[in-house]
Order: sequence, then C-alpha cells, then structure tokens
Amino acid sequence: MTTGVRRRMGVEERRQQLIGVALELFSRRSPDEVSIDEIASAAGISRPLVYHYFPGKLSLYEAALKRASDDLAGRFSEPHEGPLGARLLRVMRRFFDFVDEHGPGFSALMRGGPAVPAGGTRLLSTTSTTNALIDSVRQAAYDQILSHLGVEEPPARLELVVRSWISLAESTALIWLDGRRIPRAELELQLVHDFGALVAVSAAHDEEMGALMRRIFKDEPAEGPFVDLVSRLVGLAS
Amino acid sequence: MTTGVRRRMGVEERRQQLIGVALELFSRRSPDEVSIDEIASAAGISRPLVYHYFPGKLSLYEAALKRASDDLAGRFSEPHEGPLGARLLRVMRRFFDFVDEHGPGFSALMRGGPAVPAGGTRLLSTTSTTNALIDSVRQAAYDQILSHLGVEEPPARLELVVRSWISLAESTALIWLDGRRIPRAELELQLVHDFGALVAVSAAHDEEMGALMRRIFKDEPAEGPFVDLVSRLVGLAS
Repeated sequence: MTTGVRRRMGVEERRQQLIGVALELFSRRSPDEVSIDEIASAAGISRPLVYHYFPGKLSLYEAALKRASDDLAGRFSEPHEGPLGARLLRVMRRFFDFVDEHGPGFSALMRGGPAVPAGGTRLLSTTSTTNALIDSVRQAAYDQILSHLGVEEPPARLELVVRSWISLAESTALIWLDGRRIPRAELELQLVHDFGALVAVSAAHDEEMGALMRRIFKDEPAEGPFVDLVSRLVGLAS
Repeated sequence: MTTGVRRRMGVEERRQQLIGVALELFSRRSPDEVSIDEIASAAGISRPLVYHYFPGKLSLYEAALKRASDDLAGRFSEPHEGPLGARLLRVMRRFFDFVDEHGPGFSALMRGGPAVPAGGTRLLSTTSTTNALIDSVRQAAYDQILSHLGVEEPPARLELVVRSWISLAESTALIWLDGRRIPRAELELQLVHDFGALVAVSAAHDEEMGALMRRIFKDEPAEGPFVDLVSRLVGLAS
C-alpha cells in the first residue's frame, strides 16, 4: 500500500543504508574531509540519528571499509577455466574498476590515512581494524592466486613472488590514481606481465620455481598475455 | 681528569643518548612492547627524567624513527661509478643490513603498527609524522635511483617502475623478516633482477622506456647482475 508517508526503516536496514551513503562519500573524497553532517544530510536523517546507529565516525568508516573490502575480495573470484594469463587479466580489470570507483578513499586508506598539516587533526588513521581488513583482502587475493596455480602448500619462494606482486599491484594502482597519467588498460596488462616476469626471475634463481613456471605457462595460448610478453621482449632484444 | 663521579650530560647529549637506547630497543622487539621503564633502565636514568626530555613514548619513538630514517636514507648513497647493476646490488646489501639490524621495529612500522588483540591498546600506530618519515625515505630512494639513471625529469612510466619497485623491495624485506626462509643474499640479487625485469616489461609497452632501457643496460659487463639475469632466463627457456 502506498500511503505517501515515508516508510520507517528497520535498524539493520537503516545501518546498511548509512554504510552505503558513507561509502559513497568516502570513495569520492578523502574520508577525513567527510563530516557526519554530510552523511546525515545525504541519508536524509538527522545528525543525532546517525549517532544512534553508529557511535562515531570511526565506527561508520570501519563498517564502510568492511563493505568495500568484501566487495573487492569478491572481485578476485574467477572461474577455474581457460588459460591463466587471461584469468589474471580479467581480475586486474575488476581490480582497477574498484580502484577507479573508490579512488580517494582507496588512496587515503592505503597511505595510512591522509597526512594533515601541522596543527590539523587526523581522525581516521589506520587502526588495528582497518589494518586487519586490508590484510584480509590481501590474503583473499593470495589464496585466489594459489588456487588458480593449483598449489596448496606454496614453497617460500612462491609465497614471496605472489605476496610481493600483490603489493606491486597495490602501489601501481596508487601511483595510477595520482594523476592517471598512464591508461589503466595498459597497467592492467602490464601487471599481468609483471607477474610473469617476477615468476621468471624467481625461476631463474630456483629449480622448484622453474618447474612450477613451466607447468603454469605450458598451456598459454599464442594470443594470451604471457606469450605476448615473450614476443614483445624478443622484439625488444632484436 | 677522572674523578670517578659520573659526568652530567648536557640536554642535547642526553636526548641523543635516549634516542640511541630507544632505537636499539625498538629495533629488537615490536615498539609497542617496549616500556618507558625499560628505556629508562637501559639508559641508567629514572623514568621521570625520560619524561623530562621527551613528553611521551610517541615523541621518543618518532625521534628514534627519525634517526633510523636518516640512517637508511644515507645507505642509498652510492658513488656514480661503475656499472649500474653492481651499484644497485651494493645498495640492496646495505638495505638488507638495515632491515636485519632493525627487524621487529621495521616490521611493526611498515605494517602500520602492530595489530593488537581485542581490548588491547595500541600506542604507536602510524601517525602523520611516521608516515611522512616513511615517505621521505621512499623519496630519497627514488631520487637516488633517478640520479644514477641520469634522468632529471622522469616520464610517468619510469616513475611508476621506480616507485613500484621500491614498494616491491619493501614487501620483499617484510616477507623475508617473517621467518627468514630464503637466504638474504639471494633476495638482494633477485631484487636487482626484479628491477631489470620491471624495466624490461615497461620497455615492452612503451618506446620511450625501450630507449631508456637500452641506454641504462648498454654498459653492463658480462659478470654484472643484469647480464647474469639474461643468461639465466635464456638457460631457463632452452
């Protein structure tokens, strides 16, 4: 029945609405610059009512970050079908979609909260909670990659390659956000190439990694990103 | 004249001594676990006297971090002589020396301060000051590399390679500290190889980077790390 009277939301529904509104604002500007008043206004409720659902801005920020983390971790899911290079490239596209959608918030978070001028206050620095969320996303990315590589108990050198490549992807995204001077499609492909290159360097140091590399690259098609990299490098060398 | 009476230190001398004592303790255990009492005891002075020189643990931590940052930044200085690969390898050795000396403190800092269990307190999270110090060290590393490459105004793709490789070196060191399962000498060489590989991948995407790569690698001797990588990769491919 439509009565023209605004329907009252339940507690959980209201909390979810506030998280959505806050995440939207935290994504478009540095979270430190977003006030509770703005969030209240965007949600169409009063400031005291926001505090009724969340004791302070930090708890709302952490709830928004939790939603964003779950979203990002979900984007790493990729069917175990087809060549590995193409799978990784699709994941990189979704990763850059996320970074694109949440730019300023992503930057502020990954840089440990925005630096403030002397005398300024810094409300949303990294906390145990935000660090744990970031780590859980990194772990989700790591677990996904290992499952695609078909490795359950990674040797130390594989763990190093995968985890350090994840940090390379993070820093590449952060540098991209700072001015967007390189087309993102180029960086998505380049990160897949970087992964192949880091695996190859590790394989050049260790026989076990060499065997793994041969196995994971053996079914790559001629048009896939890994073979593309080798052709480009051969072209470069000649 | 030796009188047997302990000489009284001047204010600045005492501050410097406390910074040294604190840095030593913060380097060996996670800084959150080090108390002002321990610092006082190690310095041979009373707890109130520590507070006379530093208003709280955070200010002493920041002063210790400033000294460590200056130390690390200084280790990036390398004469502009001889092949680039060998220079970078020497810098990597000094970087791992630093990481080795300051392991737990380095880890806690770079992970944004230690995570604490629910109900615990977290005294030394990242702050604007600690973030600014970390950024200044990254910038020193970046400036050094550009000066060795002989580039004053880096194109966006070179900036990306150098800055993202610096983050790769940081994460490689952090992963190494967590169990030290790979010999550090291997990682020092591998990071030099990673640098070459990331430059090559970027060169495979962009002609300007290709020209830069040819220029920076052209004087590499047969026994240098970059030629070593190429031989290893050729061996791997055959």
